[in-house]
Amino acid sequence: MSTLRDHGDPGDAPSVPPPLTPVVNAARPSAAEEARTIAASTNTGTLATLTADGDPWASMVTFGLLDGAPVLCVSNLAEHGRNLAGDQRASIAVTAPATDADPLANPRITLAGVVARPTGDEYDAARAAHLAAVPAAKYYVDYSDFTLWVLRVHRVRWVGGYGRMDSATGPDYTAAAPDPVRPAAGGAIAHLNADHADALAAMARTLGGYPDATAATCTDLDRYGLDLRVTCARGIAYTRVGYATPIDSADQLRAAAVELTRRAQQA
Amino acid sequence: MSTLRDHGDPGDAPSVPPPLTPVVNAARPSAAEEARTIAASTNTGTLATLTADGDPWASMVTFGLLDGAPVLCVSNLAEHGRNLAGDQRASIAVTAPATDADPLANPRITLAGVVARPTGDEYDAARAAHLAAVPAAKYYVDYSDFTLWVLRVHRVRWVGGYGRMDSATGPDYTAAAPDPVRPAAGGAIAHLNADHADALAAMARTLGGYPDATAATCTDLDRYGLDLRVTCARGIAYTRVGYATPIDSADQLRAAAVELTRRAQQA
Repeated sequence: MSTLRDHGDPGDAPSVPPPLTPVVNAARPSAAEEARTIAASTNTGTLATLTADGDPWASMVTFGLLDGAPVLCVSNLAEHGRNLAGDQRASIAVTAPATDADPLANPRITLAGVVARPTGDEYDAARAAHLAAVPAAKYYVDYSDFTLWVLRVHRVRWVGGYGRMDSATGPDYTAAAPDPVRPAAGGAIAHLNADHADALAAMARTLGGYPDATAATCTDLDRYGLDLRVTCARGIAYTRVGYATPIDSADQLRAAAVELTRRAQQA
Repeated sequence: MSTLRDHGDPGDAPSVPPPLTPVVNAARPSAAEEARTIAASTNTGTLATLTADGDPWASMVTFGLLDGAPVLCVSNLAEHGRNLAGDQRASIAVTAPATDADPLANPRITLAGVVARPTGDEYDAARAAHLAAVPAAKYYVDYSDFTLWVLRVHRVRWVGGYGRMDSATGPDYTAAAPDPVRPAAGGAIAHLNADHADALAAMARTLGGYPDATAATCTDLDRYGLDLRVTCARGIAYTRVGYATPIDSADQLRAAAVELTRRAQQA
């Protein structure tokens, strides 16, 4: 059996060099915004419900979103369907599409609350939201042995990756908006890394707090700015460069990156 | 609000033509074998635990396998770590890597039971099993604020896709083996469909119960045989062609497929 180590002992884990100058603009999405973005990034998650014995039951579900609230359509005959009919407490874990080979480095959320059967106008809106996200549901959404449930989110836990995590309240989650830039991030990140490596390194040096950066790659981006992975003689670090102002669509990304580049290269 | 339909009313869902002759060998893995195979197909799942209030909490976890039992390594500071310390009841949902764009068509399982902290030799084996599946765990597995938990599986639910599902007991799950062929299935399926379309159609006609098949594609395969998607004038159907004898490794797949082809074309 291995000797236990305290968390303070880095063992052979890599250490991270700190910035040498202030980060100019570290603005980034709130936990509530991150959670809304992750919820909007997929149509599948894993539901936790309670069996008749009160045991926790994990099961894959599809969902749509109605103002951020997951809308499920589950068979009353399925175990999770019977569980929800018996006890309406539930949570759903949603993982964003993987961008890192290490699963624990990828963002994910848990939305916890209570499910309710929508009625009237909310039923119609919930049904439409589920069908928009899960087209195959047209084959069963109106069967009498399937139930549409809306998860009223009371509490949110967001984990952005190693060491990045926070909680949000249900109302903050509901009031937040999904990031409008994130769906286009993959292509934009690839373009920045392929064609603008010098600009990224300049951003890390003059805006990101690493004047000794020799290279930088963009690892993620959103409406507030870019996440950078920085190489310097001291090791590998991670920093943030925020745009002059937040942007509202992927169309504005190019101008925001050009402005960042000019500012980085002038400094 | 839409008119509710009974499950017996197909609505606009496609109907499936039945076989016209007996299926020669429909052998396929048991639910316990399917579950072991799915558990072995990935290192991530979603855990359901109980909060101090008894609420169900879903959260992403990584895991290794010790004789089929999921081995978790979770921070005692994380919500699921605190939950497990308080109540050892847990279940884990695992989804096989997607092969179908419709998430509900993809295989998944729930393994339910109680977690325990392994000791002595079992601790060493569990630690090694977790590290083998989750290499990054070397950075934290020995920290004193992380706990290694083994999920003793009491009950298994397997869902193979639409209309394919079954339960298994914990002992049956533990006694079963993961399919030795499934990890190589992707390449083999692509090869069969690209280069042996005539053979697959012949299998569907003479072994699969669809003498009117005009085409067939392989949708999955395992140590017992091939799943076929059959096109005939009556519509689209799904059937099964079992090998002469089950095979024990991917190396034996070619010979088994050749034998199936000969038998199909002789008949």
